[in-house]
Amino acid sequence: MSYPFLKGHGTENDFVVLPDPDGSLHGYVDGEMPAERVRALCDRRAGLGGDGVLRAVRRDGGWFMDYCNADGSVSEMCGNGIRVFARYLHDHQGETFPMRIQTRDGVKVLDRSAHGDGRDLTADMGAPEVLGDTKVSVGDRTWPAQHVSMGNPHAVAFVDDLADAGHLLEPPGHDASVYPDGVNVEFVVRRGEHHVAMRVHERGSGETRSCGTGACAVAVAASLADGAPRGTSYRVDVPGGTLHAEWTEDDRVLLTGPAVLVAEGTTDL
Amino acid sequence: MSYPFLKGHGTENDFVVLPDPDGSLHGYVDGEMPAERVRALCDRRAGLGGDGVLRAVRRDGGWFMDYCNADGSVSEMCGNGIRVFARYLHDHQGETFPMRIQTRDGVKVLDRSAHGDGRDLTADMGAPEVLGDTKVSVGDRTWPAQHVSMGNPHAVAFVDDLADAGHLLEPPGHDASVYPDGVNVEFVVRRGEHHVAMRVHERGSGETRSCGTGACAVAVAASLADGAPRGTSYRVDVPGGTLHAEWTEDDRVLLTGPAVLVAEGTTDL
Repeated sequence: MSYPFLKGHGTENDFVVLPDPDGSLHGYVDGEMPAERVRALCDRRAGLGGDGVLRAVRRDGGWFMDYCNADGSVSEMCGNGIRVFARYLHDHQGETFPMRIQTRDGVKVLDRSAHGDGRDLTADMGAPEVLGDTKVSVGDRTWPAQHVSMGNPHAVAFVDDLADAGHLLEPPGHDASVYPDGVNVEFVVRRGEHHVAMRVHERGSGETRSCGTGACAVAVAASLADGAPRGTSYRVDVPGGTLHAEWTEDDRVLLTGPAVLVAEGTTDL
Repeated sequence: MSYPFLKGHGTENDFVVLPDPDGSLHGYVDGEMPAERVRALCDRRAGLGGDGVLRAVRRDGGWFMDYCNADGSVSEMCGNGIRVFARYLHDHQGETFPMRIQTRDGVKVLDRSAHGDGRDLTADMGAPEVLGDTKVSVGDRTWPAQHVSMGNPHAVAFVDDLADAGHLLEPPGHDASVYPDGVNVEFVVRRGEHHVAMRVHERGSGETRSCGTGACAVAVAASLADGAPRGTSYRVDVPGGTLHAEWTEDDRVLLTGPAVLVAEGTTDL
């Protein structure tokens, strides 16, 4: 049995998009994609490859983003994925910006941005929580870090050189009493005024090319370190490209970045 | 500009197939795919992902397999790739078995096999060269190895346990006077009569899920070690699946394995 798919990425965080307007694809029940099929689609050798699957289901007059991680687990939201999802709805379903998208973490608003090639998209990622000082370590080196939650836990450490974090083949050391469920660790260097670069080790995934909530946490930590006024946009370079994040006066973080669809077709995976 | 592609794999050695019957795709000249486009297609995050590109060009009343590695370099042949190529020609171009396919390494003959689910394909990989004893090492461990050429150089080492080779993050140590251009190293354990399992470190690629010429070299070395008569079929388990290799009486190696197409569509990469 063959069904349609698209492949896309945002700063090299890549996704398989599954158009499923009436929620009937292979008998999927809303919000319950078979984990085995998600793993088959995301397999980078035997499948299409991806960090996750974005299933597009019509609901309540709009669209619901049914997001699963590559391992088949359900997830609330994905800062890079929702831009790819919005690109799909715009280019293939005739939706217009600003666009409201239903997720398991509530309704998200996506809009165009003047960044990038003029085609970057902005997602409202909600309010950060700044939770104090902590520290992280790699091998025998330790750095002070800022504990920031974007719904998921982050430790943001400013370092002298991104190479200082080494190969990051293991999760960085962290305070298990602060992060009982593990932590996403960002290592950050300054590149210029309101311009930083980061590497990220994501819990469960290892080092990745990009992390949307990580870029948000980094912008929040940098804003605090700089004493920058709310509404300052930070450029955050990640290994897979460039994001911009802004902590607004009304306490939301706006994440802006590219969203590209590179292929469409059919699969029988 | 959008053009057609397919995605497939053989024992998880995966490929982007580009149908290009008249050799005019994007102004490609026969045998010269732009390296930049090959890299973009094979990029596992920003592209479609693959170990290489198989471009299908009509030539001299048949088909030519224009094969490029993921880095854009041209290559003569690929034992797993040519099965995927034959699957494409059969399923989408109406070609029948036995099938003659032109490659930079001459004409190869592909045929059906009764192995696997009855859909496995066999490729004649030509004559091996048995070139004597050598040794390979990982860390402070050293194993005797058999030097076998399948057009490309191999060192086949029988080990007690596949885990003995460790993480294989670096090329195994080898005799540079024997292998001035590097070597593909296979670590092999016996699983039963005429049944082995292997891991492989490919020069330039690191550890991979499968290596067609490596499985051939392993079958040759095992045949010699066992004193098995020519024509004995060896089952060779690789991390990405199962291959069968047979060193024939007329001094060819027949490599048999699965070839699967998982998707087709269009891309603008």
